[in-house]
Amino acid sequence: MKVLVLNCGSSSLKYQLIDMSDETLLAKGLVERIGLDGARIKHVKVGSEPFIKETHIPNHDVAVKLVVDALQDPQHGVVKDLSELSAVGHRVVHGGEKFTRSVLVDQEVLKGIEEVIPLAPLHNPANLMGIKAVMHALPGTPNVAVFDTAFHQTMPAHAYMYGIPYEHYEKDRVRRYGFHGTSHFYVAHRVAEAMGRPIEELKIVTCHLGNGSSITAVSGGKSVDTSLGYGTTEGILMGTRSGNLDPSVMIYLMEKYGDPKVVSDVVHKKSGVCGISGVSSDMRDVEEAMEKGDQRCKLAFDMLCYGIKKYIGAYAAAMGGIDAIVFTAGIGENSDLVREAVCKDLEFLGVKFDPSKNKVRGKEAELTTPDSKVKVYVIPTNEELVIARDTKELALKG
Amino acid sequence: MKVLVLNCGSSSLKYQLIDMSDETLLAKGLVERIGLDGARIKHVKVGSEPFIKETHIPNHDVAVKLVVDALQDPQHGVVKDLSELSAVGHRVVHGGEKFTRSVLVDQEVLKGIEEVIPLAPLHNPANLMGIKAVMHALPGTPNVAVFDTAFHQTMPAHAYMYGIPYEHYEKDRVRRYGFHGTSHFYVAHRVAEAMGRPIEELKIVTCHLGNGSSITAVSGGKSVDTSLGYGTTEGILMGTRSGNLDPSVMIYLMEKYGDPKVVSDVVHKKSGVCGISGVSSDMRDVEEAMEKGDQRCKLAFDMLCYGIKKYIGAYAAAMGGIDAIVFTAGIGENSDLVREAVCKDLEFLGVKFDPSKNKVRGKEAELTTPDSKVKVYVIPTNEELVIARDTKELALKG
Repeated sequence: MKVLVLNCGSSSLKYQLIDMSDETLLAKGLVERIGLDGARIKHVKVGSEPFIKETHIPNHDVAVKLVVDALQDPQHGVVKDLSELSAVGHRVVHGGEKFTRSVLVDQEVLKGIEEVIPLAPLHNPANLMGIKAVMHALPGTPNVAVFDTAFHQTMPAHAYMYGIPYEHYEKDRVRRYGFHGTSHFYVAHRVAEAMGRPIEELKIVTCHLGNGSSITAVSGGKSVDTSLGYGTTEGILMGTRSGNLDPSVMIYLMEKYGDPKVVSDVVHKKSGVCGISGVSSDMRDVEEAMEKGDQRCKLAFDMLCYGIKKYIGAYAAAMGGIDAIVFTAGIGENSDLVREAVCKDLEFLGVKFDPSKNKVRGKEAELTTPDSKVKVYVIPTNEELVIARDTKELALKG
Repeated sequence: MKVLVLNCGSSSLKYQLIDMSDETLLAKGLVERIGLDGARIKHVKVGSEPFIKETHIPNHDVAVKLVVDALQDPQHGVVKDLSELSAVGHRVVHGGEKFTRSVLVDQEVLKGIEEVIPLAPLHNPANLMGIKAVMHALPGTPNVAVFDTAFHQTMPAHAYMYGIPYEHYEKDRVRRYGFHGTSHFYVAHRVAEAMGRPIEELKIVTCHLGNGSSITAVSGGKSVDTSLGYGTTEGILMGTRSGNLDPSVMIYLMEKYGDPKVVSDVVHKKSGVCGISGVSSDMRDVEEAMEKGDQRCKLAFDMLCYGIKKYIGAYAAAMGGIDAIVFTAGIGENSDLVREAVCKDLEFLGVKFDPSKNKVRGKEAELTTPDSKVKVYVIPTNEELVIARDTKELALKG
C-alpha cells in the first residue's frame, strides 16, 4: 500500500510517497511559488538526481496535477499508474476542539475544517485547497486529515485555559490549542520504544526546536500541556517569534505602534532569535557569531536555552517528575551547544548528561550515562510517517 | 530610634510607626480618599481602639500633616514631639534600572524617581507626592526610598529580557523588573533563619500570593528570576489580572476591542480569578463556591495552583534545584487548600508535605516532614519592617 502525504501552504506544497508495507520513502518533493512568478516543482525519486521543472502553476489544482504526473513519470516516477496511490494523507494545521484525532475526509469534515478557519486564517484555507485539489485529481481515492492540534486535545482545562474573562472561551474558543502535535506524538512514542518501556508508564518532555518551536509534557502517552497556545507566538524564543511576553509588554507595543497588524508583525516576524541577536533567525549563524564573541548572539542563545530549561522544570512539576527529555527538529537534532546548555544543572531532576555522547547531528542517540535516572535523547522527527500511518489505518477501515 | 514607614497611593496613604530599638510596632493607620469626598484617617495606637476622623483632605500634604498630628496627639498619639521621628521610609514602586538598593533621598534621587514615571505612571507620582509632603511637614528629617523593584535588579539578562526587538530595551528600557521585592527579600531571609542556614547557600522559591501575586527564585540570597515583569500582569493568575497570555491572545483582544486602554482594563481589572470564576476576585469566596460545587470556581482554583506549581518547577530548573518553598501574603498565609494543591506531587523535587501541619492561618509554620529534603514554610510577610530597617541603616549612616 502506497500513501501520498501532502503538506500544503498558501503558495507551496510538500509531499512524500511512502510504501507502507515497510514504511520506506519512495519519492518526495516540493512545489513552490504557487500562483506567483517563478513557480516550480522539485521532485526527487529516492536514489536519483532531483528533477526540477519551472512552469506556470496558477493554483493548487495544477500543483497537485504536477505532483501526480511526476509520481507516474516513466523516468523519475515511482508508480506505474494512479491506482497504486491507495490513499492521501493531509497535514491540517488546526482542528479546533472538533477534531481530537485523524479522520477520513467527507463533506462534514471539510465543513469542520472550514469552521475553524478563524483560528488559523493563513493555514487552514491552504490545507483545504490541497484536499480539494486531490479530490479533483484522484477521484475515489480516500483522503485523511491529520491535525497538528489533535494530539493536544487531551490537555486538562487548567492547562488550556487563559486567565481572561471566561466569555472569550465560550464565544470565540480562545484557549491553548498547541501545535506540532504529530511531531511530539512521534518522538514520544519513539523514545518509549528506544527505552524499551510502555509509553503508558512514562513522563516525557518533548522539545521540538525548529524555526517554530514547542515543548510538550507527555504523560502516559497523552499531551497534558504544551508551550504553543492559541496562536503560534507563545512559549520559548523562536526564529522570528517572541515567545512568552508580559501582557503589559503587548500593551506597550500596541501604544507604540497603534495597529494590531503591525504589533502582530513585530512579534511574529521581527522578534525572537532574530530580534535579540540582530544577526539572524537561524541558530547556526547565531552560534557562529556567538563563538566569535558577539554579545547579543550570546544573549539570544542564553534566552533560548534558559527558556527551554524552565519549561522542562515546569512540566516536570506538572507531571510529578520526568523519565525522559527528547530533542527534535532542526535545532534539537543538530545543536549540541543548545542541548548541553539546556541539560546543564538538571542533576536535581535525575539527569546525568554525558557530553561525550552529544556530538551527534540528525540521528537518534541517547545522551545520558547508563545510570541516569532521567534519559535524554535526540530523536529525528518524522511527521510525514505519522500522517502516513494514520492515513493507512483509516483508509483500510474505510 | 523611631521610624515612620509610608506607603502612598494616588488617593491613599498607609503608615506604621516602628520603634527600631526592638522593632515593635507603636502605631499604624490609613488615610483614604485623598482629594475625594468622604476622606478620612483611621489611626490605631497599638493596644487601643482605632481613632477615625472624617475631614477634608485635598492633597498628600494635608494627609501627612494629619498623620503627624495623630502620632503626637495627647490621647491616641505615641510620641511626645516630632523630634522623636528619627527618619521616614517610603515605599517606592519603581526604581527602574537606576536603583538597585534603598537610598537616602536627595534632589538627585527625587529626579531619578521622576525619570522612571513612564514605567509606573500610576504609582511613582503618588510615591513622590508622599516624599515631598514629608519634606514639608518634617523638614530636616531624613527620608529613605525603598524600591519594590530593587531586590530583582540582580537578575541576569537572560532572565529579564523579552524576545522582542532589542531596540525596545535600548530605547524604552522594556525588560522584566519584578515587584514585591521587599516581601520576597523579607521571607527569603526569614526562612533561612528558620532553617538555621546561611541564605548564601540556599535556593528558595518565594510565593507572594495576594490580590497581586509574584513568585521569585532566590539563589544565594539574590533574586535570579521573578514572575511579574515589565508591568504587573505577567505570571500566575491574580485577583483580577490575567497572568501569562499568549501574545496571540493579546492580538485577539486588540482586534476585538480596538483600544489599548480597553485591552489594558480587561487584562488588569476583569481577568484572573474574577474573570474565570465569574464570582469574585477574592479566593475566599471562590474556595467557598468551589466547595459547594461551582465548576468555574474550581477551574480558577486549579489554574492558580497549577500556575504556581509550574513556576516552582521552572525556578527549580533555573537554580539547579531548591531547598525551600515559602508561601506568603493573603492567599499564601491563609489558604491551606492552595498550599496543599500546589505541593501535591512535588515528591520528585524532594518535598514531603505534611497536611497535618497545614491548618495554619497567618502565622509562621513549617509544613513538611522532618526528613523532607525541601522545606515548605508559611512566613507572614512584613514589608514595612524591611523598609524600616533600611531606613534606620541609611539614616544612621547619614
